[in-house]
Amino acid sequence: MSQGASLSGFPEWLPEQRVVEQALIDTLRRVFELNGFIGIETRAVEPGSSLLKKGETSKEIYLLSRLQDRGEEDKVPVEDRLGLHFDLTVPLSRYVVENSGHLTFPFKRWQIQKVWRGERPQEGRFREFVQADVDVVGNGELPAHYEVELPLVMVSALEELRAFGLPKATVHANNRKLSEGFYRGLGLDDVEGVLREIDKLDKIGTNAVCDLLVSQCGATPEQARACLDLAGLTASDGRQLHERFDGLCRQVGIDMGGQAYSLAEEGLDTLAMIIDEADRIRPGSVIADLKIARGLDYYTGSVYETFLEGAESLGSICSGGRYDNLATQGKRTYPGVGLSIGLSRLLSFLLSAKGAHANRVSPASVLVAVWNEGDRSVSDHIAQKLRSRGIAADVAPTAAKVGKQIRYADHLGIPYVWFPAQEGEEATGDEVKNIITGDQVPADALSWTPDSVYAQQRVEFGA
Amino acid sequence: MSQGASLSGFPEWLPEQRVVEQALIDTLRRVFELNGFIGIETRAVEPGSSLLKKGETSKEIYLLSRLQDRGEEDKVPVEDRLGLHFDLTVPLSRYVVENSGHLTFPFKRWQIQKVWRGERPQEGRFREFVQADVDVVGNGELPAHYEVELPLVMVSALEELRAFGLPKATVHANNRKLSEGFYRGLGLDDVEGVLREIDKLDKIGTNAVCDLLVSQCGATPEQARACLDLAGLTASDGRQLHERFDGLCRQVGIDMGGQAYSLAEEGLDTLAMIIDEADRIRPGSVIADLKIARGLDYYTGSVYETFLEGAESLGSICSGGRYDNLATQGKRTYPGVGLSIGLSRLLSFLLSAKGAHANRVSPASVLVAVWNEGDRSVSDHIAQKLRSRGIAADVAPTAAKVGKQIRYADHLGIPYVWFPAQEGEEATGDEVKNIITGDQVPADALSWTPDSVYAQQRVEFGA
Repeated sequence: MSQGASLSGFPEWLPEQRVVEQALIDTLRRVFELNGFIGIETRAVEPGSSLLKKGETSKEIYLLSRLQDRGEEDKVPVEDRLGLHFDLTVPLSRYVVENSGHLTFPFKRWQIQKVWRGERPQEGRFREFVQADVDVVGNGELPAHYEVELPLVMVSALEELRAFGLPKATVHANNRKLSEGFYRGLGLDDVEGVLREIDKLDKIGTNAVCDLLVSQCGATPEQARACLDLAGLTASDGRQLHERFDGLCRQVGIDMGGQAYSLAEEGLDTLAMIIDEADRIRPGSVIADLKIARGLDYYTGSVYETFLEGAESLGSICSGGRYDNLATQGKRTYPGVGLSIGLSRLLSFLLSAKGAHANRVSPASVLVAVWNEGDRSVSDHIAQKLRSRGIAADVAPTAAKVGKQIRYADHLGIPYVWFPAQEGEEATGDEVKNIITGDQVPADALSWTPDSVYAQQRVEFGA
Repeated sequence: MSQGASLSGFPEWLPEQRVVEQALIDTLRRVFELNGFIGIETRAVEPGSSLLKKGETSKEIYLLSRLQDRGEEDKVPVEDRLGLHFDLTVPLSRYVVENSGHLTFPFKRWQIQKVWRGERPQEGRFREFVQADVDVVGNGELPAHYEVELPLVMVSALEELRAFGLPKATVHANNRKLSEGFYRGLGLDDVEGVLREIDKLDKIGTNAVCDLLVSQCGATPEQARACLDLAGLTASDGRQLHERFDGLCRQVGIDMGGQAYSLAEEGLDTLAMIIDEADRIRPGSVIADLKIARGLDYYTGSVYETFLEGAESLGSICSGGRYDNLATQGKRTYPGVGLSIGLSRLLSFLLSAKGAHANRVSPASVLVAVWNEGDRSVSDHIAQKLRSRGIAADVAPTAAKVGKQIRYADHLGIPYVWFPAQEGEEATGDEVKNIITGDQVPADALSWTPDSVYAQQRVEFGA
């Protein structure tokens, strides 16, 4: 994070760090578009009514007020006030409903934007950050194959980010119907409550969650233990998943002919399909992990979290799921499935833990020197010629001593300094110096090209 | 604007319109980087103390409050509250001061981001919009040649946008010192006030401004007329500018040996230098226009507005100036000069007046058909092969009748539909159909490439 970042929770990056963020964004966009996703951008604000109805994040909203209306904010009900969006899924749902007549369904969209959460400052969490989302939204129905494809698009996107130092990513999938059916089969009806507590497992551990299930969700110690046993289940193929789940159901005495089990089985079948299909396309990229709960309450089927090898403590870096009831218009529903990468947190990790950095601060490959201010237009003209050929070029800020001009290029990481022919030297012509290797050669701005290794600003990683 | 945009002032675009916006952003970024500008992004919020001290826009701020703190907002002084930034110049100045130890000066930066203004809803103005800025900020000093280069960078960027239907752009330049010296020479000391009224000329006309100068700024009718005469001055070269300005000074009786005239002359010399230099590099791109005032109060020297040929009623689409006192740290100052394109307004104009549109909604060049759901993996595999070669590909959402799959491609503007070899047909192999021309040919996903005219999503304009 930028040394001077003066507002806790609002990260800001130095230019050489921003290069890494921009490279992440460019790479994700490229992968999303290669997969046929359509880019949109939604406004940053939503009415309170739409922000408040969705899950726990509703507690962390920033509301807006016009400076002139200060002191009068409370006259307007929260539902009618504007707030900053806290994710990109709620705005997508609203956008789809508003524009349904102009969209082709299933609507596959990517979106990379800032979101805001009014967290308490002391928590040290980001209050402004970038999310990168892909979703597919159907009109009335949405085929289950998208529940395999969407996590795989994210896996292939994250795979591209390994060039910036990212470790291998694995998607952990679960299904809300499976969990709900299991809990109901146990006789627990506060499904939301149980999911909320299970979601805390990584943070507070098994014993604390067990206590909460008893105290907050009315579970008996046996029921609580069964819930934790379910959360302990993982599987890497469908057959294994079925066997382990059914084994647990038998062990805890769930009626496998009952309605609750039927619901669980529906989720089980989808989850088994997902990990088997994913395994065929990208072996090892998606596993079943029945502790995945997701705090937000709009998911109705598959849920996903993604962990990095050797950086599990970072938590999930890419999460999502299927939501069948988020967008509705009268009787029509727009079911969707999607995942969201927490880009700012990923960037922060790459910068601090993996040493990701720009090979240079400036996008320019060449700094054109200026011998004296009266001849600045000669240097400008050379720079223009280079730019017209796609070579990024800067011109020295002042006609300082040549050593100072070279130092300016060096500070910015610009690899080449161009010396215009000086008076009386027109016969010999311009020269260009690679200030990294020290090589200096005659050059013509209409034909010279930088060595490929010095041609582009790019991201490297490692110490 | 998207048909369903439900919040006045918060524009949102349909996918085919967003393609145009994204192309504008990509093009500007490319030009800025070719010129050696460094990209940064600042947080969306600033403390009230920093938003409130700058000019008239301070009246149009959105303040934030956490939902939980509702009803308690007034306990915190506005200066200590957070607000959304209303431009990118104030955040840049703050960023430069905070990070000065980590930056190389002069610091040339580009920044394309959303800004917010808490306008009254009924005004029909954007309350959320994108700005694209370039600025150069010096440490202690900033050479005057940047006052020519910055508008020319914008001219070359706007020139690139002509590919999307933008008319020719001309930068109109003035200088605050010239105006101030002239007004003081007339005996008018409320310089800010006069500039504020002159800034209204295009909106309310000469007579109304004349009245306001008398009633609001204490001008005599003669002084007011002299101010309007100055605002009527234009020139396309430095000599002409000097002659016309001095002619007017003599006519209205300004003491050309006095201090006020000296100040005016300082601005006059810079302005003459700007139009002469600009004329040498890009003839006709920058003219002197002495009615340019700029409402914001942080400019201290050159000021710029930019108008489009045949679309003058749109007002200035790219404005800025030199500010010597915006960023300070103790005794150190960071003078800057920069311009800002109102990207959302430009986009709105290109969409509605110039018919700018995407050649297709989807980035995909190919839709791979699915014969039946059991064989979906065959289609997925073909799509993967195409993507690995950089060809954006989508897969049909369902194994519907082939006509329906082609219609899906057609709705999204995807030019090619790929037919995997059907059972018993392996010998003949895959075929690909261009659904625009109707051509259908055998094809191999490892070697086929789309015709160049159908290869990329791009922007076109015209009916």
